[in-house]
This record gives sequence, C-alpha cells and structure tokens, in this order.
Amino acid sequence: MRSEQPENVRLSDDGTAVLIIDQTLLPNEVKYIELREAFELHEALTMLRIRGAPAIGIFAAYALYVLAQQTKVSEYETFYAQVLKHSSYLDSARPTAVNLSKQLRRMEKLVETLAGKPIPAILNAMREEAMNIQREDIEMCRAISEHGLSLIRDGCGVLTHCNAGPLATSLYGTGLGPILLAHERGLHVRAYCCETRPLLQGARLTTYELSKAGIDCTLICDNMTSIVMEEGKIDAVFVGCDRVSRNGDAANKIGTSGVAIIAKHYGIPFYVCCPSSTIDPEISSGAQIKIEQRSPREVKELFFEKPIAPESVNCYNPAFDVTNNSLITAIITENGICMPPYGESLAVCTGNK
Amino acid sequence: MRSEQPENVRLSDDGTAVLIIDQTLLPNEVKYIELREAFELHEALTMLRIRGAPAIGIFAAYALYVLAQQTKVSEYETFYAQVLKHSSYLDSARPTAVNLSKQLRRMEKLVETLAGKPIPAILNAMREEAMNIQREDIEMCRAISEHGLSLIRDGCGVLTHCNAGPLATSLYGTGLGPILLAHERGLHVRAYCCETRPLLQGARLTTYELSKAGIDCTLICDNMTSIVMEEGKIDAVFVGCDRVSRNGDAANKIGTSGVAIIAKHYGIPFYVCCPSSTIDPEISSGAQIKIEQRSPREVKELFFEKPIAPESVNCYNPAFDVTNNSLITAIITENGICMPPYGESLAVCTGNK
Repeated sequence: MRSEQPENVRLSDDGTAVLIIDQTLLPNEVKYIELREAFELHEALTMLRIRGAPAIGIFAAYALYVLAQQTKVSEYETFYAQVLKHSSYLDSARPTAVNLSKQLRRMEKLVETLAGKPIPAILNAMREEAMNIQREDIEMCRAISEHGLSLIRDGCGVLTHCNAGPLATSLYGTGLGPILLAHERGLHVRAYCCETRPLLQGARLTTYELSKAGIDCTLICDNMTSIVMEEGKIDAVFVGCDRVSRNGDAANKIGTSGVAIIAKHYGIPFYVCCPSSTIDPEISSGAQIKIEQRSPREVKELFFEKPIAPESVNCYNPAFDVTNNSLITAIITENGICMPPYGESLAVCTGNK
Repeated sequence: MRSEQPENVRLSDDGTAVLIIDQTLLPNEVKYIELREAFELHEALTMLRIRGAPAIGIFAAYALYVLAQQTKVSEYETFYAQVLKHSSYLDSARPTAVNLSKQLRRMEKLVETLAGKPIPAILNAMREEAMNIQREDIEMCRAISEHGLSLIRDGCGVLTHCNAGPLATSLYGTGLGPILLAHERGLHVRAYCCETRPLLQGARLTTYELSKAGIDCTLICDNMTSIVMEEGKIDAVFVGCDRVSRNGDAANKIGTSGVAIIAKHYGIPFYVCCPSSTIDPEISSGAQIKIEQRSPREVKELFFEKPIAPESVNCYNPAFDVTNNSLITAIITENGICMPPYGESLAVCTGNK
C-alpha cells in the first residue's frame, strides 16, 4: 500500500491556510498555492483549482477552519453565526456533489455541539475534525480500492472517464483506486482515459496520475469510447461519482451516462466507485439531483488559442449527467460491492436498513 | 432552393488551379487558396484543408485535371501513365471515404476510353467530367435534402455530428441538407452540433454554416449527447457518411457509432444521409472498411495553447468508426429512403438488383 501523504489538499504547516495543487495548471506545471481569504477559497472551488467530490469535501472542512481561525470575536453565538455564514458561502460554489455540503454540515454540527465552550477549544476541535475527514477519506479509498480490485483480472483493459484518482480524493482515489492498487499488486492493466471535455480532466489529470504510477495508459477523445469497446480493448469501466440517489442513479462528470449506455450495448460491466457518504438518502432518484451549468467559455475558448466556434453560437455546458441505475453493474463503496436492486443494497450499505 | 454557387471547391478562373476555402482556418478566417502542385494538392487532403467525403471526390477530380494539364508529353500512353501515377498519389491521401477513389477511377476510365485521342481533347473532356461530378453532387444533395425533409417536423430538435454541410459536399450537404432545406421552407428547427473532437469540425464548420443560414443552433461537447437526448431536446439525428457496406454498416467521423448507440437507447431515430455512390457494393460489412489512423498530435496538441497531457502518454486517434446497421433507422440517398433490411434496400437503391 502506498504510504505517501496526500499532496492535493492539506493544511499549511502554520495552520493558517489551505494548501492545494492548482489542478488547472496540470500537467504542464505542478504549482502549490496557499489560500486564506474567503473569496479565494470560494474561487478555487468554482474555478476547479481543487475538484473531485471527496477532495472538495475535505477542502471545505479545512477552509471553514481556516476562516473560523481569523475570527476576532470571543462570544460563542457570534462565532457560530460567522461559521454558518462562511459555510453557506463555500457551499454555494458547487451544487452537484453531496460531499461539499455534507462535510460543511458535519463541521457546523461540531461547532453546535460545542456551544458555550471557549473559542480556542472549538477551533482545536474543528482542526481535528477536518483532519479526521481527510483520514477517513484515505481509509475509505483504500477499502474501495480493495473491493474494486476483486473485479480486475491480469492483462485486462479498463476505461475511465474524468478524474477519480488521488487528486480528486486524498490518496488512491475512487474510480482509479482499483487500477492503482492492481498495478501495485503486480497485475498488468491497460488503462484508457477519456479526455473529458470541456475541461480535459481525463487528459490533464488522469493520464498524469496513471503515468506517474507507471501504468500503461492511453488517451482517447470522449467520442472514441465506442470504437475502443467495439475493438475489444475494454473489459470494464471504472468511474467515480458525485452523488448517488437511493435508487442507484449516479451523477458524475458530463459524459458518464453516455459511456455507461455504450458499455451496456457492448456487454461491458460498468462500475461506479464512491464512498458511502456519496449516497444521498434524501433523494429518491437522479431526477432530483441539481446539475451545475457552467460557462459556454469553457467549451468555446478556454483551452484553445482561438475561438473554436462563431461567437454568436449558443452553447450548452452542463457539468454533470446522471447515469440511470439500470446501466450500472455495481456500486463499489468502502463497505462492499452493492448490486442491483439498489434500493435494497444501498440502504444496507449506508446503514439505513 | 438556394441558387448560389458552391464556394468550398472549384476550378480557378484561368483553369490552372483548384480553388478551395482552407477549412482548417474556419470559423476565424475565410481564406481561399489556389493549389497547383501535386504535393500541395495531396497536403490539402491529408491536412483536411478540404474534407467531407463528397467534397474530396470533387476536389480529386479537379486536382487530377489540373495536374494532367501540366503535362509536357504529346503521346497518349505516356500521358495515361502520368494520369494513373497522379491518381494513385492523390488516392493515398485518405483511405476511408469511398468517394475519393471512386471519382479518381471515373476520371481514369474517361482517359482510358479516349485512348489515342489528342491530349488537348482529352484535357477538355477531363475538365468537363470534373465539372459534371460537381454538378451531379449538387443535384444529389438537393434530392437527399428533399427526401430527408419528409422526416423533419416543425419545432423539432435535431442533433448532428461532425460536418456534413455545404463545406463537405458542394451545396446543401448530406446530413445538414434536410435541416437547411427545412429552414428555407419556413420550419423552425433547433440544431444541436457535437463539437467533434479532435479536429472540431462540428464546432468550427457546422455551427458556422448553420448560423450563417440563420438556424437556431447550439454547440455541445461530444460527451453531452446523452444528456441532451435524455432531457428530450432531440427528436432525430442526421449525419453524413464516408462509406456504406452492402449490409448497411456506415463508416463516418469518429464518434458517430456512439451517438447511434445512445440515440437507440433513448428511442430516437438515427438517419444516415449520403449519395448512393457512398454505398460500396464491393464490401459486405463494415469490418472490411479500412479506418484511417491519424497523429496523436491532433488530440494532444493541435488546438491547444499548451499540451493537454504528459508528452509520454500513448494516444489512440482513429478518424472514423463504423455504425452497425442495426443502429440505423434509415439511410437517405438521392434515390429515396432505404429502410432495413439494408441488404435488400441498398441493392435496389444502387441498381444492383
């Protein structure tokens, strides 16, 4: 098992800032940035300098602690109100992943239970809680990777979409976890990475992480999924996810549902890997998941030297889509592999049954 | 019916060059270039300055005439050998579209039938034949558009992949023909254009052509096909194609087969529009169609300011894929709408039965 510390998000050594790799600059530049101010912490989320459902949950917990630390008040009620204000501001940065609001709620609850305690004691507890969130995430990713490994054979080809690796979590990753672990255990795995337009997380981040680990990895455009499956190059699909409803519908990066439909057409298993915290018992189906809409600039301009379409052209840019549970072979969590029917298996997995 | 002359490919006024719009510069720059030398005519094909199955057939016919004109010999046998050499060189530029080799064969045959005639007479005949090829293409596209129009309802949403418009043919287009004609006849059509990675023909060319015609058009990334279909925005898919086998398997721009699989999943009709000359009676199934492989640079670098993936990463870049006939609702040719089973209907359509 890899022993290194997570590098994508942590508290700075003096504890006054959140330290992240600016993922928008990868793979051309590995640059660490320290964030202290509310507006820059918020901007890092909206601009995807930090992204990936589990990673933004960890980031938000640290961010809330860093902001709380800057307080000048010594009276609990005012302090608590400040925490809630900051939490709500951070929560507004990304709407789709459940982890962001879930970890913020956890931090708020902690502060609530410490009502009346001295502020320095509350701050210490907040810091410890944020670090626990990250530690737990590492353990969860390890467990997910172990469960997922049982589905990987030596010499097989796996396809992944977007980035669900260490950069999206804090170590191992979810969708990439089984692949990284298989490689560590000496299995040969051929990985195919969809580039993942518009922001190219697959090309920029996933191929970077897999190459660094020494894994045989091939970049394809998103629209090459069908041909690589048809040519027999792919034995299984592994993806991460941002939110799962009670019935097993899974929201993940835009394009995931298309990959799942194509995989089903070719009879290739499609696995969703996520911590059980991604399963949202509050919602019954994917139709209730709010899909983040992002700027047309991401599609028409961001990575290109010149505009790629006439300026006047409309552009639709949803950041996620929902994969229907009927397309998902299994959902792999730290508690085990959930099979359909998901209403049953996910309730057991999350302890709601 | 639009009466304007084709602008994407024609003979220069003095008849010594092929005149094209350099499609690699669109939509940011509309630049006409004159091509006279064998190497630059070949380069225009490989670099996709001219592209689209019908358009490259027309281009090749003009190119063969322009090169034949430069001959210094007056003896038929040597002249004919030169024509064959040039034809084979031009044919080597792109392997997938049947139109390129078919129109070159047609020009060769013409020269063969004129064996022994004076070279100036043969050149005149070649020029006339190339212009006929273009005139016939325009008529074919008109007829395809009329047939396709019968499948479009007022207010409907259509999705298209890559570019099968006037730039890919010589007027109207194949896949875009029914949409352009519907708009001319006063129907409101909402068009969704897949950007079509890696070379972005959908973003650069299709949105340019549809906007110019005044059609309501929305650009999406290739991986957004599933979400727009799931949200009910799409009533039908129209695409062009590069080669059809006897059983109805259709090779078209990479990603087309994925769109067809997703359309079938959502119960949306998928129409392939092409001249009957695209149907290749020589091949029984799509498995026999040679798929052009192109440079990884197109995926990793071409349109981007910086590389989008680590330099060492493998990259797979097939330019086409084959859509299985079971996914195609109908194939629309100038001779009418062919329905499954295609073995039967295509044989009737091409006069092979």
